[in-house]
Amino acid sequence: MGKYIFELPLKVRDYECDLQGIVNNANYQHYLEHTRHEFLTAAGASFARLHEAGVDPVVARLTMAFKTPLKSGDEFVSKLYLKKEGIKYVFYQDIFRLPDMKPVIKATVETVCVIHGKLSASSLFDELFVRYLNTDEA
Amino acid sequence: MGKYIFELPLKVRDYECDLQGIVNNANYQHYLEHTRHEFLTAAGASFARLHEAGVDPVVARLTMAFKTPLKSGDEFVSKLYLKKEGIKYVFYQDIFRLPDMKPVIKATVETVCVIHGKLSASSLFDELFVRYLNTDEA
Amino acid sequence: MGKYIFELPLKVRDYECDLQGIVNNANYQHYLEHTRHEFLTAAGASFARLHEAGVDPVVARLTMAFKTPLKSGDEFVSKLYLKKEGIKYVFYQDIFRLPDMKPVIKATVETVCVIHGKLSASSLFDELFVRYLNTDEA
Amino acid sequence: MGKYIFELPLKVRDYECDLQGIVNNANYQHYLEHTRHEFLTAAGASFARLHEAGVDPVVARLTMAFKTPLKSGDEFVSKLYLKKEGIKYVFYQDIFRLPDMKPVIKATVETVCVIHGKLSASSLFDELFVRYLNTDEA
Repeated sequence: MGKYIFELPLKVRDYECDLQGIVNNANYQHYLEHTRHEFLTAAGASFARLHEAGVDPVVARLTMAFKTPLKSGDEFVSKLYLKKEGIKYVFYQDIFRLPDMKPVIKATVETVCVIHGKLSASSLFDELFVRYLNTDEA
Repeated sequence: MGKYIFELPLKVRDYECDLQGIVNNANYQHYLEHTRHEFLTAAGASFARLHEAGVDPVVARLTMAFKTPLKSGDEFVSKLYLKKEGIKYVFYQDIFRLPDMKPVIKATVETVCVIHGKLSASSLFDELFVRYLNTDEA
Repeated sequence: MGKYIFELPLKVRDYECDLQGIVNNANYQHYLEHTRHEFLTAAGASFARLHEAGVDPVVARLTMAFKTPLKSGDEFVSKLYLKKEGIKYVFYQDIFRLPDMKPVIKATVETVCVIHGKLSASSLFDELFVRYLNTDEA
Repeated sequence: MGKYIFELPLKVRDYECDLQGIVNNANYQHYLEHTRHEFLTAAGASFARLHEAGVDPVVARLTMAFKTPLKSGDEFVSKLYLKKEGIKYVFYQDIFRLPDMKPVIKATVETVCVIHGKLSASSLFDELFVRYLNTDEA
């Protein structure tokens, strides 16, 4: 997986395509979110249970570059790695079309932790993510 | 408004259209839900605040007939009336295209009230809805 | 699979849940549509390519009974069988939660075929579906 | 409207909220897209008709800063202005909560024009947008 520490294979669902016949842009944000949440699950936490416990990871800033649009029937893989920058965890998320691995989306997602409504450093995330941190990536 | 007791004018948003170039079927369910919630607001309640208070109106059964598809740029009006049948409140919801009033959707939505996780008769809804009930409609 | 002729295992994505903490009703319609389209693919056709060829299967009528709501993290299986009734193909679609197989949705989806904008009998579908038809089911 | 050249008042729909009880991030992208398309309509073009004519405006790059989350019942206004940068049209799109005008989203959306599948300079857009261009904004 190279620099990536988690990946999720997915397939376009037709209802995600819009009248241009390609996946509507907002759905890539859904793919990225779903990938982060599945990563969170793999790391031993659950987004829904965190919310019930008053811990809400929230996105502070998002950048997406749209490279190649996905179409009906396309399969793809959504990959990520993460870095800690101050109190932010920054997810680097890339989507590649299968099987040719053509880049679809290159995204950077800056997340912060809100605990009982207040922006907080999260020792919980520090613990969960410590073994996944990518420290020497450019 | 005839038999209808609430109506909401809306407009198709392009992201609601799918690769057939028409509004994706699931979005009509969104329109119907949004209309019921706006009706609830007009009746003096809020779906979100009800949920926080442990009161969740839920759909038990839904029937939709698809008459004419909506397209990009179309405006439409979503209308409803309701009846009480046993512990169910049944919403009769119709969507018409504007300005020609061509029928788009004819739906019946049977809702029940779940209070703190249990199916319940809701005296709250009985109070809220009493002045809206359509009793002599076929 | 009993009376069912196609099934698709799926998992709830968090963005499909609404403020009640359960899958929003309209998303079940997405699950049902995706299941039909994957069935279509398995049967040798593609919804997108059919559309490009001027052939649009459309839903004329839908009935859904909501049995048990799905939550964040839930896995489920979406199953279907179909019957021909006049010029309609009727899909009987049921969703069960995994692993306990608790019924989630029971749906009936009546579809017709629109060819170049006109309601049509579809000999294409007759050919595609003939080996899947469930003729003696109640 | 200050530097803004188009604005659209909108209201949160409950199905746009997720299990955190706030509008799901991807829906802000829907709001931004809908605002651009309504602007396009006001400028005399239609996204759907452009697509039918082989002209597809596509998003090449998107940056969103999430300031304050919207909740069930919130009303808001979505504003934009645009600049030409090389062959890109860059939309500066901000969303403010009503009535307190608290910033919700600050976004930059870089769009390019694809004509019959090829990245193109669009004289059509040059004509449409010329009177809207914001040339002296930082």
